[in-house]
Amino acid sequence: MAAEIVNSQDELDGGVESAIDPAFALHRGGKMAVRATVPVRDADDLSLAYTPGVAKVCSAIAEQPELVHDYTWKSQVVAVVTDGTAVLGLGDIGPQASLPVMEGKAILFKQFGGVDAVPIALDCTDVDEIVETVVRLAPSFGGVNLEDISAPRCFEIERRLQERLDIPVFHDDQHGTAVVTLAALRNAARLRGVALGELRAVISGAGAAGVAIARILVEAGIGDVAVCDRKGIVSADRTDLTDVKRELAGFTNKAGLSGSLESAMDGADVFIGVSGGTVPEKAVARMAKDAFVFAMANPTPEIHPDIARKYASVVATGRSDYPNQINNVLAFPGIFAGALQVRASTITEGMKLAAAEALAAVVSDELSADRVIPSPFDERVAPAVTAAVAAAARAEGVARR
Amino acid sequence: MAAEIVNSQDELDGGVESAIDPAFALHRGGKMAVRATVPVRDADDLSLAYTPGVAKVCSAIAEQPELVHDYTWKSQVVAVVTDGTAVLGLGDIGPQASLPVMEGKAILFKQFGGVDAVPIALDCTDVDEIVETVVRLAPSFGGVNLEDISAPRCFEIERRLQERLDIPVFHDDQHGTAVVTLAALRNAARLRGVALGELRAVISGAGAAGVAIARILVEAGIGDVAVCDRKGIVSADRTDLTDVKRELAGFTNKAGLSGSLESAMDGADVFIGVSGGTVPEKAVARMAKDAFVFAMANPTPEIHPDIARKYASVVATGRSDYPNQINNVLAFPGIFAGALQVRASTITEGMKLAAAEALAAVVSDELSADRVIPSPFDERVAPAVTAAVAAAARAEGVARR
Repeated sequence: MAAEIVNSQDELDGGVESAIDPAFALHRGGKMAVRATVPVRDADDLSLAYTPGVAKVCSAIAEQPELVHDYTWKSQVVAVVTDGTAVLGLGDIGPQASLPVMEGKAILFKQFGGVDAVPIALDCTDVDEIVETVVRLAPSFGGVNLEDISAPRCFEIERRLQERLDIPVFHDDQHGTAVVTLAALRNAARLRGVALGELRAVISGAGAAGVAIARILVEAGIGDVAVCDRKGIVSADRTDLTDVKRELAGFTNKAGLSGSLESAMDGADVFIGVSGGTVPEKAVARMAKDAFVFAMANPTPEIHPDIARKYASVVATGRSDYPNQINNVLAFPGIFAGALQVRASTITEGMKLAAAEALAAVVSDELSADRVIPSPFDERVAPAVTAAVAAAARAEGVARR
Repeated sequence: MAAEIVNSQDELDGGVESAIDPAFALHRGGKMAVRATVPVRDADDLSLAYTPGVAKVCSAIAEQPELVHDYTWKSQVVAVVTDGTAVLGLGDIGPQASLPVMEGKAILFKQFGGVDAVPIALDCTDVDEIVETVVRLAPSFGGVNLEDISAPRCFEIERRLQERLDIPVFHDDQHGTAVVTLAALRNAARLRGVALGELRAVISGAGAAGVAIARILVEAGIGDVAVCDRKGIVSADRTDLTDVKRELAGFTNKAGLSGSLESAMDGADVFIGVSGGTVPEKAVARMAKDAFVFAMANPTPEIHPDIARKYASVVATGRSDYPNQINNVLAFPGIFAGALQVRASTITEGMKLAAAEALAAVVSDELSADRVIPSPFDERVAPAVTAAVAAAARAEGVARR
């Protein structure tokens, strides 16, 4: 953690809090900017980059629409779209207050994936309005990263946008988390010498992340997975399920469990926490021998990693100050970079699985209980994920170059 | 003009035209990018710029919404919004084909005004839809530059957005052109030693630019101005006028002229062409002695500047290869930079007039017939316009800091 500093301008404008907190000093004036990548020094430059030269390029795109990918920044820029309804652990704080997160996301896209990204925080929360707005914006962008939109609205928004648009639409809170979780789980299983098919997992949390993790684990061949919401195990016999949870009940929980989260954890091999709740030590103690505990709630894990380590063979969290950080930045920059590189029309399940496999493979020769997933600053990560996603897009027939 | 080059990738992808034209080579991959303005090198950086540090900044904005201006890029970024219906002289080529112009505009904002800008080309042309979409986008932006939207829709879109939003909304094709034209006219009048009130002007073209120029000339105190569309002088006795032209007839043409453009030019002191049509030499010959001819159609002026110079004391065009280029880049970067600097809620008529006065003043000590307006690359321009606009915003009570 950087030392605390005092910034006098902050002190004047923002009061005591900003004066003593380095995060405020860093955020002053925002975290990003735009720059020209071509010279605009003189009239000759201007006559090429703007009128009259630009007219020929516009006309060419009007005649051959696919040239937009060659002659504009469209295919290298992603809209980071939110409505501000589920921002970090803060909840529904509205579009403007969400902007620091969206800017942060945008600079992570650039830093880790070389992908340009623009924060688009929308002043509407109606599903129809969000969908229509993003469809209207789409000509300017090569992809859409949905961010911090509350469940279950996020599922319908993503599905409808994927139907309407011919560019990748990706809700990172779902799929980014799912990809990184699967990668960590693959390596944990490798380390212990078991196959995914031998493992029974329990997920605490049936929101965006929980649903997507359950889906990718099933696709990857997990033995069984039960998802728990606040009322317990999501099972077909429950009468209080939303559409999404009913669907979830259909493809998870093969064992037909019902009851509490604690009962589900009894003898389970894997605990995955994306709930923000807490799990008692005794529930972890009753898991299978050498279990994996991924307590990913931020900033407070469902169970403290030091406690979890007493029982589990591999412990992961969402925090940077403990080993095995499940950090979405390991996935989304490379996933979009790969998709944009081949102008994929969508991001398929196969591309997500390939991303997880490539991410896991980065550290497969260096595995230990404290190293089932690479550091976010491991420079091998983004190129590996990018290449795997691009190859998968080609293999699945969604690449357009 | 840069030498023609051959780019082999262009040749492969884009055919013969792109292979021999430097504009295509320059446009490859687009003209802009995003960059982080804060470090993202290690976990400490990430913990400030992203989670967990960012959460404190989000919470502060949720509690005190005006802090969004301090701690995000909102107040330094402008959306360059188009629907692609009136792009350059190309007309309705659609949103994607308009992107090279919007990117060009964005880099001019940055280069000349230090203002970040993002191209937003919308896939809708309905006025209601455009207005709603831009209102929903607005939380992310400090201002909206409307661009290349066809008349008369552009007037209603601008008016309704100004009513709905508390950030500047500025249709550059109208007001940018009007500001630069007024600046050139002020200096031409100074050079000849006449007051604006002594001049009678004729504008050819009653679209976005013509209407806005007429309005600013009247506000600036022109003696009289008649606007002509394809059917001749816009006058109150005509029965075929749109709402906008009827309004125009109400505040222009004090002399009550009716008839053709040529008849309006008879004895007129100023010709301003924003029509794309042509004006016969004999019409220029019948203008008042020492008239001013601003033939601004691009790429082909309404009358060739060499012909116009036979009769007029000052000739201006829209072209960079003749003296006195009426180029919007002299206005919009400084106007937005000034408005954003003081967080103006709108751009008032007074701010536009102040911009024109400041722009004219840059060369007021160096006036000649070939120098009534500065070069776009005159580095004194943007700071002068910025300062004047910020001061005017304060004077008019629309500044918020």
